[in-house]
Amino acid sequence: MNRRDMIKLSTVAVAAASAATLTDAAHAQAGSRSVVRWDVLELNLPGPTAGNPFLDVTLSATFRYLHRTITVAGFYDGDGSYKIRFMPDELGTWTWTTASNTPALNNQSGSFTCTVPEPGNRGPVSVRDSYNFGYADGTPFVECGTTCYAWAFQSEATQKQTIETLRTSPFNKLRMCLFPKWYQHNRSEPPMYPFPRSADKNDYSTFNPAYFQHLEKLILELRDIGVQADLILFHPYDKWGYQSMPAEVDDRYLRYVIARFSAYRNVWWSLANEYDLLRDKSSADWDRFARIVAESDPFDHLRSIHYCFHQYEYTRGWCTHAGVQDSRLEMAASWRADWHKPVVFDECKYEGNIASRWGNLSADAMTRRFWLASAMGTYCGHGETYLSPEDILWWSHGGVLHGQSPAKIAFLRLLLEETIAVGPGPIGFTNFSDEPAGARRPNDAVIFYYYDEHQPAEGTYKLPEGKTYTAEYIDTIQLTRTPLPGEYSGQATVKIPGTPWGSLWFRQKGIA
Amino acid sequence: MNRRDMIKLSTVAVAAASAATLTDAAHAQAGSRSVVRWDVLELNLPGPTAGNPFLDVTLSATFRYLHRTITVAGFYDGDGSYKIRFMPDELGTWTWTTASNTPALNNQSGSFTCTVPEPGNRGPVSVRDSYNFGYADGTPFVECGTTCYAWAFQSEATQKQTIETLRTSPFNKLRMCLFPKWYQHNRSEPPMYPFPRSADKNDYSTFNPAYFQHLEKLILELRDIGVQADLILFHPYDKWGYQSMPAEVDDRYLRYVIARFSAYRNVWWSLANEYDLLRDKSSADWDRFARIVAESDPFDHLRSIHYCFHQYEYTRGWCTHAGVQDSRLEMAASWRADWHKPVVFDECKYEGNIASRWGNLSADAMTRRFWLASAMGTYCGHGETYLSPEDILWWSHGGVLHGQSPAKIAFLRLLLEETIAVGPGPIGFTNFSDEPAGARRPNDAVIFYYYDEHQPAEGTYKLPEGKTYTAEYIDTIQLTRTPLPGEYSGQATVKIPGTPWGSLWFRQKGIA
Repeated sequence: MNRRDMIKLSTVAVAAASAATLTDAAHAQAGSRSVVRWDVLELNLPGPTAGNPFLDVTLSATFRYLHRTITVAGFYDGDGSYKIRFMPDELGTWTWTTASNTPALNNQSGSFTCTVPEPGNRGPVSVRDSYNFGYADGTPFVECGTTCYAWAFQSEATQKQTIETLRTSPFNKLRMCLFPKWYQHNRSEPPMYPFPRSADKNDYSTFNPAYFQHLEKLILELRDIGVQADLILFHPYDKWGYQSMPAEVDDRYLRYVIARFSAYRNVWWSLANEYDLLRDKSSADWDRFARIVAESDPFDHLRSIHYCFHQYEYTRGWCTHAGVQDSRLEMAASWRADWHKPVVFDECKYEGNIASRWGNLSADAMTRRFWLASAMGTYCGHGETYLSPEDILWWSHGGVLHGQSPAKIAFLRLLLEETIAVGPGPIGFTNFSDEPAGARRPNDAVIFYYYDEHQPAEGTYKLPEGKTYTAEYIDTIQLTRTPLPGEYSGQATVKIPGTPWGSLWFRQKGIA
Repeated sequence: MNRRDMIKLSTVAVAAASAATLTDAAHAQAGSRSVVRWDVLELNLPGPTAGNPFLDVTLSATFRYLHRTITVAGFYDGDGSYKIRFMPDELGTWTWTTASNTPALNNQSGSFTCTVPEPGNRGPVSVRDSYNFGYADGTPFVECGTTCYAWAFQSEATQKQTIETLRTSPFNKLRMCLFPKWYQHNRSEPPMYPFPRSADKNDYSTFNPAYFQHLEKLILELRDIGVQADLILFHPYDKWGYQSMPAEVDDRYLRYVIARFSAYRNVWWSLANEYDLLRDKSSADWDRFARIVAESDPFDHLRSIHYCFHQYEYTRGWCTHAGVQDSRLEMAASWRADWHKPVVFDECKYEGNIASRWGNLSADAMTRRFWLASAMGTYCGHGETYLSPEDILWWSHGGVLHGQSPAKIAFLRLLLEETIAVGPGPIGFTNFSDEPAGARRPNDAVIFYYYDEHQPAEGTYKLPEGKTYTAEYIDTIQLTRTPLPGEYSGQATVKIPGTPWGSLWFRQKGIA
């Protein structure tokens, strides 16, 4: 049984178990149902359909594991179905009890066993070592993102193709919008709307569960191929009104998507794409949204926000990491030091050939940005905007990749990952203006330089005392690896091929 | 007779005429001697050898043309020879009278005729249209510089090779030091010293005329192949003491080289290379040097200064243009606007492969900097630092060029020059961060964009009202020119090849 099948099975099994819980609560004994660690336990409770369940019914469940209690909000999924989703993070027996203002949903209880996860299920990603990311099982996560902002609103065939493309791509995080998108190359109505809609009016008093069920399906498909879903909660490319909803609707929407999605281990929250372009929102609104997300997500997923013109204050407590839109890669090391958080250049323009400057970087320019970010101890984001006869651009719609940068980014990711066992992600240590961008693992087991548009044929490098290194020369564009003869230590002079876009890697002998 | 021969002849003829003047001053009649416009009239007067002629004897001549009088300092050239050099800038009859504290040199007088110059002798270069340069005859000068800082102190064979290389290179300005250089790859004693030297001590009370005669020979060789000599008056790469001479020696040295060299029409003055690295000089010293150069040069040659860390205040009146050391080409348009002067990126790192980051740019990176500078209405500087078995690096020693950028820079210069007749140099008009670098001639007859690392396959460009343009696509690296079909006007959408490092040129039909 492969990993995907196992995950599917466990999800199905839990759904079945939960349904059973509700029809026969007395028989919900510890050990009789199980869910693997970091998978989803879903309680599915039948309840009232009268009135407006979205507004009238409150529902939560408190999950207990030894001394710990975690309270999780439930949500109405339509058709009399009330759901509570939980992601257990400890092996063993958990119990749960519901609370509701509706007697039929109140004071239900049960238990389940959290069991060892299948290989490949490493849990959610969080910040590690201040500047990097790691899975809950301790595996480092070398963030390598791309964007398909509006893929959820494309044809089923395109969505399927997107998953197939991602499966073999280097990208392990995808930025995607929860609201449909209206923008250049994006001028079609979505198949569904998040709120009932007629005569160009949204009925904000309820949600359209099918809309969110579809998003869930996509999030799980990403999860099953190992891709983090960086969910964009608000954005300004909108003709339907979602960027300027009443404040109480904004808040209800946030709580609803958090209740629905937060038990999925691959979720990240991005408060917005280009928050500063949402003209009807004030900084007080963004503060409130940040507080709602931080307080309502029981699983404490990663949180950030993305700007257009006005850089967000990423030092603020609620942000777990910076998700910048900026092409000034040379700022990477400074920002990392200033903000003391992981820095992700979520948007630094895209490989492509459209007229807009943000969407016509050459493949090598895109690749270069990944190298610069990495060599300063930060992370970069890809996107692709090649004109196509069907107007399907990866950046927004998904589909297939046309560009040359993904293979080169994959090569970089491999290099970063193959020595990951020796310690946390690289720290940039040069000022980059007078020296090549250079990074080292905190324990000095790996030290590398990226020469960018420079092409030295030799260099002298001061290696840490008492350690011996081998050296390898990388052509980041031709994707060749050339071991250099000999061993290096102390003040080491190295002869290198002296080609543009090269990178020199020192690895501690016997360690890395 | 080719141009070089003509120039040589005229120089020789004038020297002969001047010598005659001195032995038979009474016969120096108007019309009896002639010099072509912007060439050198040299008065050679025999005088005392006793004492210290360098310190004891004052000498000048006043040249008169109609209502104008120009007073020019003379100098002692050793062996009892006192000289005064003058560059006439008006056709017709000039007269002159000497003044000296030494009777033998005082009150000599004569006249000469200034005649039409040979083709190719366009006079000195000065600032045109605020931001550009032009020869005195009105021909625009598209500055395209390189460096051979210490070529004057290399073997005769290398010097000869340097001239031969420059003759067919795109470079029309050369930065060169007047003092010998001591630095990496430059660790040898010069064949001569500017001051008598023994036991590692300089005798600052006199000059070594042979040293300066050699410099003059090189300046004239550059002139004869159409290359401006950007003379660097002080620099910090020194082991002999020239960077920390007493103030009165600094001043005497400046007046001496100005008296010797300023009549050469291809001279530019650069107060220093990396002025801020001359630790013994204060800002008051630099102010004084600037004043001496501006006041002492009767021909008002171009003047600037070059920095390392601390950008000079190029708004200051004595600077005719900015000669920056900076790799931030993206600042070009701002600096041009702020300083309201021509901006030359005299040093923005060099093509090469040495270990130092300032000397290992790829050819394409060097080329890119020229394009960026040009597309923002400024000028760039080349230099080349490839390791060689004989340790002869073009950047400092001259010799031959090894790199790939000169051919690409030549291609750019050709493009800039082929439409030069339509008006002054380009003005950058985009902010470059959101749009491609774009420049236009002030009369809009030529408009071009440089796409840098971007590769749009189409673009919409707002062309000036009422004008019709043809379009051409340039691959700045492959050096191909592709005429695009059709004509363009108004809000024009253009399909372009969409390759990296492209440039789109609009030319007004029938004009450019």
